Amino acid sequence: MTADRPLRTAEVIAVGSELLGSTRLDTNSLYLSEKLAALGIELRAKAVVGDSRDDLAKIFRQALDRVDVVVLTGGLGPTDDDVTRDVVGSVLNLPFTEDASIVEWIEQRFSRRGMHMPEVNRRQAMVPRGAIVLDNPNGTAPGLFIEHEGKVVVLLPGPPRELQPMFERLVAGPLGSRSGSERIYNTVLLTTGRGESHIEEAIQPIYSTWREETPPIETTILATPGQIEVHLSLRSDDPVKAKARLTSAREALVAALGEAVFSLDGRPMEQILGELLRDRGLTISAAESCTGGLFLSRLTDVPGSSAYVLSGVVAYSNRAKTDFLGVSPDLIAAHGAVSEPVAVAMADGIRSKTGASFGIGITGIAGPDGGTPEKPVGTVAIAVVGPDGAAKVRTLLLAGSRSMIKFWATQAAMDVVRKMIVRDEAVCRH
Amino acid sequence: MTADRPLRTAEVIAVGSELLGSTRLDTNSLYLSEKLAALGIELRAKAVVGDSRDDLAKIFRQALDRVDVVVLTGGLGPTDDDVTRDVVGSVLNLPFTEDASIVEWIEQRFSRRGMHMPEVNRRQAMVPRGAIVLDNPNGTAPGLFIEHEGKVVVLLPGPPRELQPMFERLVAGPLGSRSGSERIYNTVLLTTGRGESHIEEAIQPIYSTWREETPPIETTILATPGQIEVHLSLRSDDPVKAKARLTSAREALVAALGEAVFSLDGRPMEQILGELLRDRGLTISAAESCTGGLFLSRLTDVPGSSAYVLSGVVAYSNRAKTDFLGVSPDLIAAHGAVSEPVAVAMADGIRSKTGASFGIGITGIAGPDGGTPEKPVGTVAIAVVGPDGAAKVRTLLLAGSRSMIKFWATQAAMDVVRKMIVRDEAVCRH
Repeated sequence: MTADRPLRTAEVIAVGSELLGSTRLDTNSLYLSEKLAALGIELRAKAVVGDSRDDLAKIFRQALDRVDVVVLTGGLGPTDDDVTRDVVGSVLNLPFTEDASIVEWIEQRFSRRGMHMPEVNRRQAMVPRGAIVLDNPNGTAPGLFIEHEGKVVVLLPGPPRELQPMFERLVAGPLGSRSGSERIYNTVLLTTGRGESHIEEAIQPIYSTWREETPPIETTILATPGQIEVHLSLRSDDPVKAKARLTSAREALVAALGEAVFSLDGRPMEQILGELLRDRGLTISAAESCTGGLFLSRLTDVPGSSAYVLSGVVAYSNRAKTDFLGVSPDLIAAHGAVSEPVAVAMADGIRSKTGASFGIGITGIAGPDGGTPEKPVGTVAIAVVGPDGAAKVRTLLLAGSRSMIKFWATQAAMDVVRKMIVRDEAVCRH
Repeated sequence: MTADRPLRTAEVIAVGSELLGSTRLDTNSLYLSEKLAALGIELRAKAVVGDSRDDLAKIFRQALDRVDVVVLTGGLGPTDDDVTRDVVGSVLNLPFTEDASIVEWIEQRFSRRGMHMPEVNRRQAMVPRGAIVLDNPNGTAPGLFIEHEGKVVVLLPGPPRELQPMFERLVAGPLGSRSGSERIYNTVLLTTGRGESHIEEAIQPIYSTWREETPPIETTILATPGQIEVHLSLRSDDPVKAKARLTSAREALVAALGEAVFSLDGRPMEQILGELLRDRGLTISAAESCTGGLFLSRLTDVPGSSAYVLSGVVAYSNRAKTDFLGVSPDLIAAHGAVSEPVAVAMADGIRSKTGASFGIGITGIAGPDGGTPEKPVGTVAIAVVGPDGAAKVRTLLLAGSRSMIKFWATQAAMDVVRKMIVRDEAVCRH
């Protein structure tokens, strides 16, 4: 093995007709991309193919021709639709033999549930010659690890809860020992409140020089509603140097972008804000209209958030704004439900009723209907009343679908709170 | 053209390094899969490839070898990273010429913003011989439609808001006229409240016979937390017969699955419930603990939901349960915050305070901490008080991550309301 050149490139092939045109996020490719990069193996392409033997054979053969490692996920079950094992064996021209220990193990799994193993499950025990069988404690389909003419082929079950522990325990080690001394190092910055072109303009002169350095740092900018991500990556055989270079690169970006940067490691806004609140013993409550509960739902996605989230009111109707939050009907009549004074009154109301450090008020028009020439769809007023009782208020005009506007509004509201906490401390420190 | 055999199969190739290892949902493939199926063209595989010319050339050449239609998305911009146009032209061996009208059009786009067109944008005007240029009113990158030796190659811009109108206006027509008389017809059922194996067991004897019929109906079962989807599809040249067969197939499944089926067309639960409420002039309010606002956030994702969503309280703390909802501290002390009596008191409280037809109370342990031997993580009590003031209450034990438990709890709560409305009418009708 040591005579072989190191494994550097990989392709992932996901097998299953149900994956074509699926609405589900392909978490396996994402997971494998990260894990392979950590081993110094670059994911060059990924493919999704139905249960057709012919298509899979061609795609697998072609991938094997292009890259050093081919990872196939799914299609390892006992039925006729599960073609991966057969196709890989026949493309590599490996004869199959039944592995008695796998048959026994599958039989035990069934008998523990008081059932007989259906004959069809014997297929799962067929092993191509020379393949290493990968145990699957979380399902019936074992994986396979095959070395073939200096390349590696890995077959993994499709369900993430079977695939991930199998990769971690049984695949990462053998792959890493064959991938040479280089590794791929990554870091990511998350920003909010500024557009993609602003971010690009501010950092392009900085990152463009990194491409010329040895080894180069690759920079990728990804824009999503409410958030711009800046990804940096670097291939190196020196972990200490690589990490130091990424850290100083990140610092250069932070210096250029200032407080638009909210996360230095990919943690989402709700977690960043949650930690700021928790570490300072601060609490938060929210009164939401157009975001319909999403602000607090995001905050409470974080484990342990009950330490700082007190409570909230979803005040979709004017009556709820008055009954639950004490917003005066006259104020609503004078300024309209979507207005800065009403947002402030909502924030004040929820804060004083719950005794929270921060009270949030969000009112707006998420669309697609309800807009007017003065207050078009996407108009959102956000108010935050802080520990000193002073209010910070702003009106945004957001673009996109209803759910994009809802998300963006909650992101902006969390960012106002984040900046109030961070700026306050910056002032205190001077 | 008429001499050519009809286009039946397709592959989608998404180009862009940022798509490998991205956390984003690949909406383009999903969109194209549905649109191509509607034209009778089956998506056989999809691929994602970085910006490497070499990789893309190989993957494109291989796709062209396997299928009738290759759709490439992304990589049409003006920079060196945008390799799609060049690679396709060189694999097909087509010489490029600059299209003066595209140059002019891009120049106008820039001058409207008071800018000069950068020289680099000329690349976007290079057109392979014989290609039809597809206008892009929503961006600078035009698409291309190329017929080549009986096959079709389509180049589309990556952003969905540019890709979708271009496909709809300029690609669907020409593709449809070359795809013969067969079309692929689909339908989908959504169920909740029963596990995948229950659904499979109930319908397997039914759908297994459909595979033997001519033409066969393909059945796919997809499980996600809180929801099982049953997809049916059929290739036919007779739209009336095809739709009638799918309708009767769907009816056979509904008869077997009963009220577990909540959607006959893919509309999500929040929309189904919203329409039930709106059509009957009913209203809803919710008191949420462990779901943290997600119940109302989902309901208010639906446009027009302000007609039936009144308001809600996120009562994370015991104090909020008492202050906002009038839940007695003694009740909480006697049964614990996560209990059926407290869920009922929350539902009663929010209903009477807001005057809604339905009041919902949800209290549980979303984890990962906070479980006890009697009430482990995933324990959720759900209460619904209906228009007659009677309560329906149930306790679930849900599995999975915190956000899965939150979603599942909101799905189950919506399903209780749905069944109360539907059953009530079933009773009245008899």
